[in-house]
Amino acid sequence: MKKYLLAFLIFPSLTQAQPMFPQGVNDSAFIKMISDNVLRSKSADKNLYNLTKNIGGRLAGSPQMLMAEKWGAEALKNAGADKVILQECKVPHWVRGKGDMASVTYVQSGKTMTMNLSMLSIGNSVGTGPSGIVAPLIQINSFDELEKRKEEIKGKIVFYNCPFQDEFIQTFMAYGTNVKYRTQGASRAAKYGALAVLVRSMTNSTDNNAHTGTLVYTDSLPKIPAACIGLWDVAKLDSLFAKGISMQAKLVTHAMMLPDAIGHNVIGVLKGTEFPNEVITVGGHLDSWDINEGAQDDGAGVVQTIEILRAFKALGFQPKHTIQFVLFANEENGARGGEKYAEKPLQENEQHIFAMESDAGGFTPRGFGFTVNENAWAKIITWKHLFEPYGADHFSRYGGGTDIEPLGEKYGTPMSSLSPDSQRYFDLHHAAGDVFENVNMRELKLGAINMAGLLYLVDKYGL
Amino acid sequence: MKKYLLAFLIFPSLTQAQPMFPQGVNDSAFIKMISDNVLRSKSADKNLYNLTKNIGGRLAGSPQMLMAEKWGAEALKNAGADKVILQECKVPHWVRGKGDMASVTYVQSGKTMTMNLSMLSIGNSVGTGPSGIVAPLIQINSFDELEKRKEEIKGKIVFYNCPFQDEFIQTFMAYGTNVKYRTQGASRAAKYGALAVLVRSMTNSTDNNAHTGTLVYTDSLPKIPAACIGLWDVAKLDSLFAKGISMQAKLVTHAMMLPDAIGHNVIGVLKGTEFPNEVITVGGHLDSWDINEGAQDDGAGVVQTIEILRAFKALGFQPKHTIQFVLFANEENGARGGEKYAEKPLQENEQHIFAMESDAGGFTPRGFGFTVNENAWAKIITWKHLFEPYGADHFSRYGGGTDIEPLGEKYGTPMSSLSPDSQRYFDLHHAAGDVFENVNMRELKLGAINMAGLLYLVDKYGL
Repeated sequence: MKKYLLAFLIFPSLTQAQPMFPQGVNDSAFIKMISDNVLRSKSADKNLYNLTKNIGGRLAGSPQMLMAEKWGAEALKNAGADKVILQECKVPHWVRGKGDMASVTYVQSGKTMTMNLSMLSIGNSVGTGPSGIVAPLIQINSFDELEKRKEEIKGKIVFYNCPFQDEFIQTFMAYGTNVKYRTQGASRAAKYGALAVLVRSMTNSTDNNAHTGTLVYTDSLPKIPAACIGLWDVAKLDSLFAKGISMQAKLVTHAMMLPDAIGHNVIGVLKGTEFPNEVITVGGHLDSWDINEGAQDDGAGVVQTIEILRAFKALGFQPKHTIQFVLFANEENGARGGEKYAEKPLQENEQHIFAMESDAGGFTPRGFGFTVNENAWAKIITWKHLFEPYGADHFSRYGGGTDIEPLGEKYGTPMSSLSPDSQRYFDLHHAAGDVFENVNMRELKLGAINMAGLLYLVDKYGL
Repeated sequence: MKKYLLAFLIFPSLTQAQPMFPQGVNDSAFIKMISDNVLRSKSADKNLYNLTKNIGGRLAGSPQMLMAEKWGAEALKNAGADKVILQECKVPHWVRGKGDMASVTYVQSGKTMTMNLSMLSIGNSVGTGPSGIVAPLIQINSFDELEKRKEEIKGKIVFYNCPFQDEFIQTFMAYGTNVKYRTQGASRAAKYGALAVLVRSMTNSTDNNAHTGTLVYTDSLPKIPAACIGLWDVAKLDSLFAKGISMQAKLVTHAMMLPDAIGHNVIGVLKGTEFPNEVITVGGHLDSWDINEGAQDDGAGVVQTIEILRAFKALGFQPKHTIQFVLFANEENGARGGEKYAEKPLQENEQHIFAMESDAGGFTPRGFGFTVNENAWAKIITWKHLFEPYGADHFSRYGGGTDIEPLGEKYGTPMSSLSPDSQRYFDLHHAAGDVFENVNMRELKLGAINMAGLLYLVDKYGL
């Protein structure tokens, strides 16, 4: 395309919006200042590059976790925090080990064939040990089917094969529907005597990367190893099962859970000028899986959090309430960071009036979710037009996330979460593809701009 | 992130929207049927793969143009067109030639250094011929500066170096502001005796790919060669100029314009049941630049056009008005496809009541632009809520594009264009990166779903 570009492709612009909402002129002008500052700065680019390329995957308890904490404290200081607090926090310490593999062996046209599978141990899983587990593979498409076929499970490796439902517009709906096979699949199969489980990766990607994530064992049941499998190999297994071909699976994994390690929530503080004891929180989680760079999950949220602080300071913005910019210690294979942070209000006599997190990737923003009361909601929806020029004007009634929910549960703190576009998230989520190169920095910055705008409004008008 | 996904990340859903707009229930249900059908189908994936990987770059006049026409006619037939028309259309026939290069030579710390530049001839440019042009390089940052320094231009190669303005939320605004240096830069410099021009690529990408595009020569001035340069190399030139280092540039290009070739608009027709002579048009352009696969520009628009037809047929939808699904012959280095198509209404006594194009990439949809009268606009904005679940509810008052504007100009046909998210477009636009792998098929399909919804509503209710 080339002609009439200026005229034909713009959305309602700031200059159009202002006359319609005269009461919002100052607010929209300030958000424009934030936007210009963030889009012109290379600070977020450098921060994400350092976090992903110089530190990389940073699972709780790993040496990279410690490097990331040090980096985060420094980055918050450089961005202009009045002070940086390291809040000690016990974190799970799960290690993947080396030399994992999964394969299937079967007979086709009289020949014995072996196929290696693209696989990753599921987080918090036990390992098979070096000698591995060899057993017949049984395909199960749902927990309903598992229950119906429970007599067939004993002594086998269960292969959960439930595809993402393509028709959900929000891919988080597909994830939310299926993730139970990864989180609960091992214990549910162990109940009927399974030796291990393989789980179709939680993705609708077109590559063969395995997508890890966490599981939760039921204490009363044997802990069996669990691994996830890439989609090309899932398709091959699927077609072999469709032909009625029996398979022996072999799984060798070296994962183990070690005693808890010491990590930290890294908290940058911008002290409120009028209500220093009333706290607004914004954050993302510093930990990531070990097998990628944690660029979208949740390097984006971390870098956005730091970027908001930097832009506020650069513009000379002094909030009335204290803002705490939090890089949470542990979200991926536990919720320890958020739980620990929620102890702070009581310990330090803080009143937490609003909390926001970004943990759905640094994709182009679409809106915000809010868990707030009716009065707050009535106020919030009057702000929608301010976010339209920046693409985040889809407001919904449910917002939160693992890291801020303990605040909401303990204190009723109003919560919000950034809602970026979700189409590409599960192509990369918890898989090797979640690297710096797969982040568009303008999309990430637009998220930070909208988050900063919302923080500014909540600080100015309250909820 | 993992907890409460279903609740916290969804936007207002269909089930929420319906009770608020009872008059829209049937319409929203039909659009949901389109959505489910398109998201579950692999047809668009296969079509884009074939167009990009089996045919590839398909500049007007090239052998690939003929392959693409044949493929397009077949694809429209397979999608269920009542008939497929090949409308003959003369197209420009520009060829790039082989062996192009650009370099600069300079003396630094007493040493003579030569640096090759990542470059591409600008479309429709003349070539230097095999012996090339060697001349001093002069950096010019704007046409204002060119006018001020017009006495210094003679005998030199002009390097236009005007960066994209990062602060535009819509990247098309940055493109629209700067593209004049690519389209007019050669003639404006030739006026003052320049021998050739190098132009900073029209992009804010982080790679070094050169981004081509078209230029327009002023007939009364000498035609001088023009090439675009990748951004890493622009940065190097910039820093050499900043140090006051003089450079000799060498440009060797083999481009030339041949006599017009014969191409075709490929038109799939779905005949209207009530008003067969009243025509609704939807389309994208089949041609692309030669140096990539034209996946986003405009493979996306082509595949969306075909996909809408396929979904309509699959759902048994029979429009009241005739819908013409048009793959336009030539948009990139001419506007011949759209001009030729606009002859059809008069020739065939058709009344063109609405035209829509998709030529801003297959990125996640944000909305539509409309060039319509006040009455039509008043009707259109009552449809906004139907597009909110699918992300295309940002409606603006200007819509169109190169391929449908001749209809608007000649007949006052109401026009619309899909507005996808623009953040990633100019990373790829007219450059080597515009390939199949850089399209997210769910994003592309969401565009097709929204376009189909709008066509359905215009057909049902008129404008």
